[in-house]
Amino acid sequence: MNNTENNYIYGKNPVYEILTKNPKRINKIYIQKGISYDKRLKNISELAFQNKIVVQNVNLQKFSEYFEEKTNFQGVIAHVAPVEYIELDEFLETNKNDFKRIVILDGVSDPHNFGAIIRTVAAAGFDGVMVSNHRSCPINATVEKISSGAINHIPIIKTTSLSASIDLLKKHDFWVIATQMEAKDNYYEIDYTDMNFALVMGSEGKGISKTILNKADFCVKLESNFESLNVSATTAVILYEALRQIKIKTK
Amino acid sequence: MNNTENNYIYGKNPVYEILTKNPKRINKIYIQKGISYDKRLKNISELAFQNKIVVQNVNLQKFSEYFEEKTNFQGVIAHVAPVEYIELDEFLETNKNDFKRIVILDGVSDPHNFGAIIRTVAAAGFDGVMVSNHRSCPINATVEKISSGAINHIPIIKTTSLSASIDLLKKHDFWVIATQMEAKDNYYEIDYTDMNFALVMGSEGKGISKTILNKADFCVKLESNFESLNVSATTAVILYEALRQIKIKTK
Repeated sequence: MNNTENNYIYGKNPVYEILTKNPKRINKIYIQKGISYDKRLKNISELAFQNKIVVQNVNLQKFSEYFEEKTNFQGVIAHVAPVEYIELDEFLETNKNDFKRIVILDGVSDPHNFGAIIRTVAAAGFDGVMVSNHRSCPINATVEKISSGAINHIPIIKTTSLSASIDLLKKHDFWVIATQMEAKDNYYEIDYTDMNFALVMGSEGKGISKTILNKADFCVKLESNFESLNVSATTAVILYEALRQIKIKTK
Repeated sequence: MNNTENNYIYGKNPVYEILTKNPKRINKIYIQKGISYDKRLKNISELAFQNKIVVQNVNLQKFSEYFEEKTNFQGVIAHVAPVEYIELDEFLETNKNDFKRIVILDGVSDPHNFGAIIRTVAAAGFDGVMVSNHRSCPINATVEKISSGAINHIPIIKTTSLSASIDLLKKHDFWVIATQMEAKDNYYEIDYTDMNFALVMGSEGKGISKTILNKADFCVKLESNFESLNVSATTAVILYEALRQIKIKTK
């Protein structure tokens, strides 16, 4: 039975199955507005809650365009990622002799930017991208395409709380670097070598949330003569500055 | 009379008019396949030739979707840029106390990349983008949107021959820097300060053409652990490295 089209899985049994076997692949669950919950749908709803997966009540008819044939969704659709997310614990356990360097996206929701950043992390030879369960872009076909396949090489760490995950990173000797237009230091004025670091990038509109900013060890800016630079371009500039410093030091 | 929709101008008189008054705004002219040329159409065709504008014979019906009402194209449509291109001569004449720094795109045809590069040039405070008449992306609505309005601040220099224009740049004391994956030097190993420079970027598939490569004063590479970095990200990294060097030197 193939009922995955464009990363959507529908029907009570298939959704229940992926919820029990592989909940990390699920971006979001949609349940028909006004539907009466039978036992299966209640189970789905409870499992989603336990796994901290967002459930939205909508008119499922709006999904029809994604499916070739007329389909009976049985009141439930799950949007799944083409790759598996990993947990921060798992990521921290993976062995690596060198330092770990990751990018944290706080509210970056544009799939072009998300895909481009994953590609840049892979190109720079860094280690992962962390996103939050809520304020982030799901991994979809656009992200996969723009990442140019890098999505299959770079672990995407998903967390229900960026704030708690940053605390955990700090316990594991990570330095947290936030980007902010009002920062005092230029991005090239800090030393990125010989350390684990997490570079936090905010959304173009809103920037980084205050709670996260307060946890940062450094704040850096990237000067611009014209509005701000695009978020994926900014990430590329900073990651390659880090790489430049690392290369020069290890030469 | 408003017959500009989505940057298309149609009809013999309107196209003739823009050809005589403002040929630089024209990206391309489409003439109906198999049409018999009257005097006006002959004039248009000749003027296009004199101004080195590409003319393509196609079935104009395929443009119908761009127009709200059923229209009579009178056999001719011009695709115009929302902004004016400028000539290299004009650009070189503009007064500026400081050095001039531009990006040359050799075959970059994706509007997202084109728009992102224009935005980065503006953000870095540099001076222009040069494209060729033939192997380039026209300025369209996507380019305008992705550039985030920077298109209205950064001159787009259009040339019929990149090769001849590069010769002219060199006569005006520009250093030509080409990016190439096989280059010996890293992009951060050359000095960008105290000089006019033109950074040449090739298309992601084909790179920079041989004729242009042979004219370069420097070839630089940007190392990647995963395929190549996206062309607009690469441009951002190199331009900001140049800016970093300039800022440090003038501090």
